[in-house]
Amino acid sequence: MSEIFHASADILETRTRNALLEAGASTETAEATTQALLYASRIGVDSHGVRLVTHYAAMLRAGRLNGTPALKVHRTAPATALLDADDGLGHYACYHAMQLAIEMAAQTGIGAVGVMRSSHCGAAGAYALKAPEAGMVGIMTSNSDANVTPFRGTHAFHGTNPIAMAAPVEGQMPWLLDMATSSIPFNRVRLYRSLGLPLPAGVAADAEGNMTQDAMQASMLLPLGGESYGFKGAGLAGMVSILSAVLTGAMIDPRMIQMTDTSDFTTPRNVGHFCIVLDPARFVGREGFDRALKDYLAMLRAILSTTAGESVMAPGDREWKTMEERKRTGIPVDPDTRGFLKL
Amino acid sequence: MSEIFHASADILETRTRNALLEAGASTETAEATTQALLYASRIGVDSHGVRLVTHYAAMLRAGRLNGTPALKVHRTAPATALLDADDGLGHYACYHAMQLAIEMAAQTGIGAVGVMRSSHCGAAGAYALKAPEAGMVGIMTSNSDANVTPFRGTHAFHGTNPIAMAAPVEGQMPWLLDMATSSIPFNRVRLYRSLGLPLPAGVAADAEGNMTQDAMQASMLLPLGGESYGFKGAGLAGMVSILSAVLTGAMIDPRMIQMTDTSDFTTPRNVGHFCIVLDPARFVGREGFDRALKDYLAMLRAILSTTAGESVMAPGDREWKTMEERKRTGIPVDPDTRGFLKL
Repeated sequence: MSEIFHASADILETRTRNALLEAGASTETAEATTQALLYASRIGVDSHGVRLVTHYAAMLRAGRLNGTPALKVHRTAPATALLDADDGLGHYACYHAMQLAIEMAAQTGIGAVGVMRSSHCGAAGAYALKAPEAGMVGIMTSNSDANVTPFRGTHAFHGTNPIAMAAPVEGQMPWLLDMATSSIPFNRVRLYRSLGLPLPAGVAADAEGNMTQDAMQASMLLPLGGESYGFKGAGLAGMVSILSAVLTGAMIDPRMIQMTDTSDFTTPRNVGHFCIVLDPARFVGREGFDRALKDYLAMLRAILSTTAGESVMAPGDREWKTMEERKRTGIPVDPDTRGFLKL
Repeated sequence: MSEIFHASADILETRTRNALLEAGASTETAEATTQALLYASRIGVDSHGVRLVTHYAAMLRAGRLNGTPALKVHRTAPATALLDADDGLGHYACYHAMQLAIEMAAQTGIGAVGVMRSSHCGAAGAYALKAPEAGMVGIMTSNSDANVTPFRGTHAFHGTNPIAMAAPVEGQMPWLLDMATSSIPFNRVRLYRSLGLPLPAGVAADAEGNMTQDAMQASMLLPLGGESYGFKGAGLAGMVSILSAVLTGAMIDPRMIQMTDTSDFTTPRNVGHFCIVLDPARFVGREGFDRALKDYLAMLRAILSTTAGESVMAPGDREWKTMEERKRTGIPVDPDTRGFLKL
């Protein structure tokens, strides 16, 4: 295999922004999307990084995505709002929603914003992390097109429906959870197919819903918890669907047009998101929160790992480590994306 | 084996309430705890049902639990509050917190209440379900004493830290998720020990943190997701800890006195809970919410199960079915509890 190409974050940022602008994205849209993609690329979540720019540019040109959306905010109560994303890129809507939730939480202690008529938003953690920047705790969810079967089901029903949460840690990088409610993303199945390798047990099912480790036979994902405890992952996916779509007026997962496995690139998909922001100052107080979270993390990180010589990591620790490494090494870019961005 | 004894909900309710009153619980405390225990017993969650009354009565008598707590509500902002449970039984505090969150959500669209200086609260779903009674969506979490290892850790750190959510379904029983963030509770390990059976794979670890199926060797639980994806279950347990304890001033899981595996029955444990209530009327609107949730559930329940002749169930369906069955059969009561309640 040839050496993997690496690019600096700076050049990737410029090329990504320009590619989106050239495809018809407004300045605000291109900027928000670029920030979200670069965030994922920096922390090592390459599936949600700059490689997505090719797809977004194609969808802007095909008409599914509105490059110049006019976001409409409906303030429905002192602590809640509904945001109509006008079929634009999800990243722009999500940053906007999170900012609004932060502003409401500063007034009312907690704020929630639902987003509808949106689209794929990349890594949900990008938006949850805006809350710690304001000293608050942020939660972000998004529904998505069906490729996960319910527990012991025979059809895909839920999307991989991520849950993200971020909390400020005084003097440290934030605590950061960003997880799909399936064990793996469907892209991982495609990777195993191309490598000719068997899948791990309990992560995917064949067309009849039976667990399979044959990547070629896998046609849908199993929810987190697998064959025996997948009712929990399915329940969490349902929680995300209810918050992100049922509450907001977005399309429920099984009715949503597929993101890529479709020939329809013109109809907007009406993806939904949901964010909640909490102000620690309105609960135990900022000082008590800071002290308790640092104590919690210190105790967690002091636990020895089953891997000799290592300690347990907190959610986010691996991502922040990767971010530091990539400051030195640059960001790996796959050949297709390298070609698209003319790197 | 002899036939299992069944009692009617009515007699169980009376005996449970009386047992708590006799152990020193106030009328309000006894009533709330009885309602929460009977709820769990009715829906088939016997681990959190009336069998707990023996333990609660003992802890009231020993002094760990304050039978006559004076709940203190600190209204910290229009949509938030912190509730000091005064070391009383968690059930009383949780019903109170959820009611307050519902009242705030009616004004501000969303409401959140943190609870500290509390104790075991039984099934978190009991409180989440109060929100659908008011036409709202309820979320409830609780931290608990450490018996789950972090991902690839060598010590127990988190509790089984449940997440519950309930949503109103027009003309039907509520959608109801109530799940621990481990695959199984530690009581299940004890059950396998007594039965001399091997544990399922990926649910428990030995004292060194290595996965084991030997129930006698199991000394802690693995987080949901098991050996390969347990970082997700551990992350969810952390989310629950941060909401329920770090935000509220309750004891973090690894510092909490064990519920049963301890000789200290006099020191209060300072368990924490967190509830969030959302009003659908302040998002897509009540009508749109009702329509979308019914559509979502109809599509979910139309999916055939991998078990021939069956369909997929939504979260809560099994519980509501058990509740109907137990109206006819009565509630099974184990010999110890039967003896304690003089049935």
